[in-house]
Parts: sequence; structure tokens; C-alpha cells
Amino acid sequence: MKRNVLIIGAGGVAHVAAHKCAQNNILLGDIHIASRTLSKCQAIIASIKEKGNQRGPGQLKAHQLDAMDIEATKKLIRDTNSQIVLNLGSPFLNMSVLQACIETGVAYLDTAIHEDPAKVCETPPWYANYEWKRRDACRQAGVTAILGVGFDPGVVNAYGRYGMDAYFDTVDSIDIIDINAGSHGRYFATNFDPEINFREFTSTVWSWEDGKWKANAMFEHKKEWDLPVVGKRTAYLTGHDELHSMSANLGVPNIRFWMGFGEHYINVFNVLNNLGLLSEKPVRTAEGLEVVPLKVVKAVLPDPASLAPTYTGKTCIGDLLKGTKNGKPQEVLLYNVCDHEEAYKEVGSQAISYTAGVPAVAAAMLIADGVWDVSQMVNVEELDPRPFIELMNRIGLPTRVRDARGDRDLDPFAECPELSERETLGKVVVD
Amino acid sequence: MKRNVLIIGAGGVAHVAAHKCAQNNILLGDIHIASRTLSKCQAIIASIKEKGNQRGPGQLKAHQLDAMDIEATKKLIRDTNSQIVLNLGSPFLNMSVLQACIETGVAYLDTAIHEDPAKVCETPPWYANYEWKRRDACRQAGVTAILGVGFDPGVVNAYGRYGMDAYFDTVDSIDIIDINAGSHGRYFATNFDPEINFREFTSTVWSWEDGKWKANAMFEHKKEWDLPVVGKRTAYLTGHDELHSMSANLGVPNIRFWMGFGEHYINVFNVLNNLGLLSEKPVRTAEGLEVVPLKVVKAVLPDPASLAPTYTGKTCIGDLLKGTKNGKPQEVLLYNVCDHEEAYKEVGSQAISYTAGVPAVAAAMLIADGVWDVSQMVNVEELDPRPFIELMNRIGLPTRVRDARGDRDLDPFAECPELSERETLGKVVVD
Repeated sequence: MKRNVLIIGAGGVAHVAAHKCAQNNILLGDIHIASRTLSKCQAIIASIKEKGNQRGPGQLKAHQLDAMDIEATKKLIRDTNSQIVLNLGSPFLNMSVLQACIETGVAYLDTAIHEDPAKVCETPPWYANYEWKRRDACRQAGVTAILGVGFDPGVVNAYGRYGMDAYFDTVDSIDIIDINAGSHGRYFATNFDPEINFREFTSTVWSWEDGKWKANAMFEHKKEWDLPVVGKRTAYLTGHDELHSMSANLGVPNIRFWMGFGEHYINVFNVLNNLGLLSEKPVRTAEGLEVVPLKVVKAVLPDPASLAPTYTGKTCIGDLLKGTKNGKPQEVLLYNVCDHEEAYKEVGSQAISYTAGVPAVAAAMLIADGVWDVSQMVNVEELDPRPFIELMNRIGLPTRVRDARGDRDLDPFAECPELSERETLGKVVVD
Repeated sequence: MKRNVLIIGAGGVAHVAAHKCAQNNILLGDIHIASRTLSKCQAIIASIKEKGNQRGPGQLKAHQLDAMDIEATKKLIRDTNSQIVLNLGSPFLNMSVLQACIETGVAYLDTAIHEDPAKVCETPPWYANYEWKRRDACRQAGVTAILGVGFDPGVVNAYGRYGMDAYFDTVDSIDIIDINAGSHGRYFATNFDPEINFREFTSTVWSWEDGKWKANAMFEHKKEWDLPVVGKRTAYLTGHDELHSMSANLGVPNIRFWMGFGEHYINVFNVLNNLGLLSEKPVRTAEGLEVVPLKVVKAVLPDPASLAPTYTGKTCIGDLLKGTKNGKPQEVLLYNVCDHEEAYKEVGSQAISYTAGVPAVAAAMLIADGVWDVSQMVNVEELDPRPFIELMNRIGLPTRVRDARGDRDLDPFAECPELSERETLGKVVVD
């Protein structure tokens, strides 16, 4: 049993996570929020109070922290007596925050892969470049570290694992599809940190095909998908974190990630990218100022958080699995639909932040109550997906399943009372 | 008679002007080139020597100068014994360089209106905001200052004046049309300093209609023109310097400027502009760096000079005048066609720089031989256009005329032996 949560970061996902932690603070204990900018943390706390989202008594406190400073982070963990650290800051921080957790023996969670500000899209599998190098250190320290536990990566990893165990003998392919059918009404905006958003699309698109990495170009492959609620949508093969662990852990020969883009987004992206404005490498102005173009693009774009009040429409994110069951072809879609307006009403954020923040809190709750407190570093597909899916059903992100039997709410324990033989951590035995 | 030329600036236009001055240094004397970056001046001199463009003996020398520093500019004028200053640097320098010329009593020329880095597109007429405030000072000092004597503004002002005197009793409209039908082969590039290029299009488009200023939006009005050599081309109503003096000096009720743009240029422009990346107002990055977005866009775009070696195709710039002669409707197009490849062969620049640099040198030559040395501040349409057009016919920018009589080379003195009654400076009497 672990209690007291330190949230690092004060962006959109941290905002949602703080609200959800506060709603569940009877289990989670004190909630601390820390970022470089104290006022951002204070604003989150004010919005929690305004929405009446703090359920039980306990601390709700803002802290100033440069999380690149490992000693400062360790001190804050100790001072606040936090046993779970939710790292929802910039992905540049991951390795520093993880180190602070290892040295203080507390649990670590994040929602996106570590990135080096100076590099884009490194050799696959990406997790092997940074995070997995700390596996032994986590095991030795008995530290639970759950990597990439937002929606994608995160929930989609659990969907992949769950789908395999519940519905298939063999799985040939997992296509992860991420569609935002919402509208923010601005000329152009990214739904989360533009710097991170664009970095996803500016280099090689890795896909896992026939058990091997395949290099593609951005916007090289597109496909129209027919999805529940959002209907027919064009999505493009995109590089994404989850492929880099699922390919290693699931034994499925084809795993691909597809992201929906409108023509307008692609046009703006192409212009910026072709001009070199999405580059993470500094340029020098005529006046001699060294500046990273991408950081200037970020500075002129709307703050993703500012989109929330007028955001309408829904997201649909899920895994389409294809394979066989009892010798017959089988096709199953596991998915969630999230509504921008409802998310805003509940926690003051749009659905993109909501879908990333809620799973991280669900994971923290599973660590807090011991189910997922596995004392080692894992990716989500290595854990029992059922308690995770079941908990999210209750705290805002219900899962549905569409297959030959129809389209229905998913009761994860009912449809899969027993997991496969595959090694699984945090496994729940159903009586 | 004035001799010795100090060129300020080392960009594309300065490059062309330096070559042309060197070709005509028997008249112009010593040629000095000064800019913030000494190596750029040295590179220009090296290219003049490489092309064998220095005609007579005399100095050809590079200098380091911050031309915002009036005292340093005055010292350089005196040290080099220059009597003509060709200001071809950034338009932010105009008022400083002009002041240095007034205080040292030497002639001043430029090719673009003064701009304040912090403002875009000020109240019309633009010349009244800065340059014309120094008219009295020029007159008192007996200083010849010719404003805006590139192609547009510059030659097109002379075309307006010449057309009125040579072919019309009354002129109802002058449409200045600037088409670059060339191809640089890059994804996107501007043909001169991107900062200045974009500043032309990011705010109100002023046109002179029915004797009044009219405010339009960029890309609000377009028109297809059928022009010699380049054929049918779409051009857009654009704000431009020359309207701001011609409207005051010529008594023509409608004066408009049209610039040709391809759809790709407009798309890129619109994306950058809508995102706020063409703003001259600083933004602050998440890391706290203050930076002007437009300066970063400039930094990532190709150096206009780098386009020259592979630039193909032609420009066509001219004035279409409509009015009456002897009670009948009359329509005359005065124009020049310039070839990118030929310009590169001769001086190592593309046609955009060539068409701006050659007229400035022609004007300097007319000051040097006394014809245009008028001891006051003028815009080009206040001067006798004939010696200017005639001189350009001989040094690289021949003028043609298209009217009911056909399409032909223009012999300016033959077609207009006598100017109108309008006050004209630097007037040449034809014997």
C-alpha cells in the first residue's frame, strides 16, 4: 500500500490527473503538484476547488521545482512524504525524475517516452535507448515504475494484451487508431505541447511489420477506418511509443499506429516542416540570436489548455486486433469514446488531456491499493489489464468492444475470467 | 559634378549596384562598400574582380560599418571622400544614413522606404512619416536626396511620369504590375530579405482610389493581366512605397500596385501569417527567450542571394496607364523584361536584385554628371524621367512600350521631346 502522490508538471495532462487524484484522495492521500512555474500549479489547485473535485480531507499543495535537478526532486519527494510520483512534465525530464524515484524508493509513472531535446526519433525500440537501461536499478531498489501509462501509450497497450487473452488463439495484427473528431475552432492548434506533438511527426515513422522494424515516411501511408461514433476517418501511419514495447512483449508480428489528421493540419505541418520551422536544431538570426525554431512555433501557437472551453466533439481511440480463434478468422475492436465538452465540464480540460491523465491516475490507484505495485519497471502490456480497464470504467474512461457479437460495454473480468499463460505481473485471481 | 560612391549594405541589391558602379567607375570614381559584416563586402569585391566588371582604375574597397551609428557613417563618408551615398542596406537604416549625408553635405539615394522595426504599415502617405520630415533640412544643406530609386519604387515612378507627359492629356489610372515569372527551384524562398518581403504583406493594403486612400486586405483583390513575354498572370492588390509619393505628386485619381503570387506562395504566406510567425513583435519561448518570430522565419529561409545560380525565367514590371489623348481613350504599358539567367551571367545575381540595383546606379550616374543633382529631397516622379530611362536602356534595363501603335523599344527623348508644364527637376532640354 502506497500513499501520497507527487504530480510533476502543470500542463493539460497534469491538470486532469490532479483533478482525478483529488476525486480519489481517500485512497491516494495527499496530492502535491510541482512544476517550474508555481503559479501554474496554484491555478490547477484553484480549479479543483472551484469544481468541487476534492473528495476527502488531505493536503492539496503547489510546489516550485526544476525536475531536471535530481537532488531537488528527491528532497521534495521526502518533504512531502510522497510514495507515488506521477511524472507528467516534459518528456525531457523522465530520466531525471526516474532517478530521483529510484534513489528514494518510491513508485514512478509517466505517460510518454523520454526524449533528448537535441534528438528526434531515435533507433527502435525507443525504450531501450533510455528507460530500459534502468530496469535492473528499479528491480534492485524494489521500485515500481510503470512506463507510458496514458491512453496511447498506456490504455492501448492494455487493450492489445487484453484482446489477445480474451478473444484470440493467435493474433496477426494490432492496429492502434487514434481519431480526434473534435473541433477547437482555431486556425490551427495542437492538442498537447506543440513541441512534443510535432516531434512525433518530423522524422522516420517506425512500424512493426512481419516481426521487424520498418522505416516509413510521415504521411506516406494512409487508410480510411470506419469507427464507432466518429464514423469514417482517414488516419496516417505514425510513429508512436507503444509500438516500441508491445513489439517486444506481445509476440504479434504486425503492430501499427494510425493517427487521424485533417487536410488543413497536414498542410500547416508540411509548410512548417519544409521550411525547417519544426527543427529542434538551433538557427542563428541575422542579429546573432541562437534560437530553436520549434520553440518559437510553440510560443506562437495557442496554449493547448486554452482550447478546452470551446472544444466540441469526441475522440475515439482503440485497438483493432485481427487473428484467429478456434481456427476461424476473428476481428475485435477495443475502444473508448471521450467527449470534449463533458471532459471540460468535469475537470476543465479537453478530451486529449483527459484521456491521457485519467489512465495515469488509475495506475496510481492500482499501485496505491497494491495490485500493480510490482516492484520493478514495466510497460503496461506486462500487467494484468483487467483491473485497469475495470477501474477506468468507473472513473471516466469506459471501454467498449465491437466484434462479431456486436458493439457493447466491456466488463473485463466477465469476458476474460482467466488470462493466458503469458507471464503477467499484478495478476488478479478471479474467484 | 560629384564623384566617389559609398554603398551601404552588402545584400543582393548592393551586390548588383557594386558591380554596376564598378562597370561605370570612370564616371563614378572610387567605389566603397560598407556593411556590418566586412566579409560580405569583401565577397562582393571578389566577385567584381572575378567577373572582370571593374572598367577603369580607382579604388574598390570594403569597410565594416554599423550604419545606425551616424558619427561612424559621417567619418567613413569623409575618410573615403565619397560624394554619393547609395543606401542599400536594411530599410531600418534610412533615417540614420540620411542624417549622416545631410551633416556631411553629400548626395543620398535609397531604394525602399524607411521602416521602424517595431511597426508595420503605418499611416499613408508613408513618406510623410519619416523621409519628408527632412525635406527642409536637405534643402538648407543643399543635399540631393533621391528616395526610392530602385525598380519599384523608382523606375515605375519614372514610367508613370513619362507616360503622362508623352502619351496623355488626362490620366485616370496607373496600375503598376510586378510579375516574377522566374523559378528558383526551392520549396519556398523570398527574392529579397524575407523580413522586408513579408512586412509588405502583413498589414493594411493601401491603394489610391478616386483621389483617396482606400484600405484593403492582403489577397483581397486579384486580377489577371496579360503581359508581354510572361503572358497571362494573376496579381494581387498590394501595398507599396511608390503609391505614397505618386499619389501626392502626379494628380492621378487611381494608382494601384499589383504583385504576382503563385498559389504555393500564398499558401505558405497564409500559414505563417495566420500562425503569427510573420509578426515583428517579440514572443517569449517557454525557456524565457525573447525572440521576433519573423526573424526566425528569415533565419530558416534560403538566403535570397543563394537562389541566383539556378534561377531561370524572366520578370516583367511595368505601368499600365489609362486616360485620354485628344478626347479619345488611350492605354499605354511601359515595361521592362529582365532575365534571371542573364543577370546572373553578368553580375552574379538574380533579376529581382538586378532590377533594383541598376536604377540606383543610373541615378547615381545622373547625380555624378550633374543632371539629377538637384540639391533637395525628391521622389523619382519629380525628376525628368527621360535621361534615366535612356541611361538604363544602355546599362542593362531597356524599356519597352506597348500601345495601339504596337510593342516597341522606347527611345524616351524621341517619343517625348518636351515634358508637360508640370514642375520638373533635373530637366533636360532637347536641342
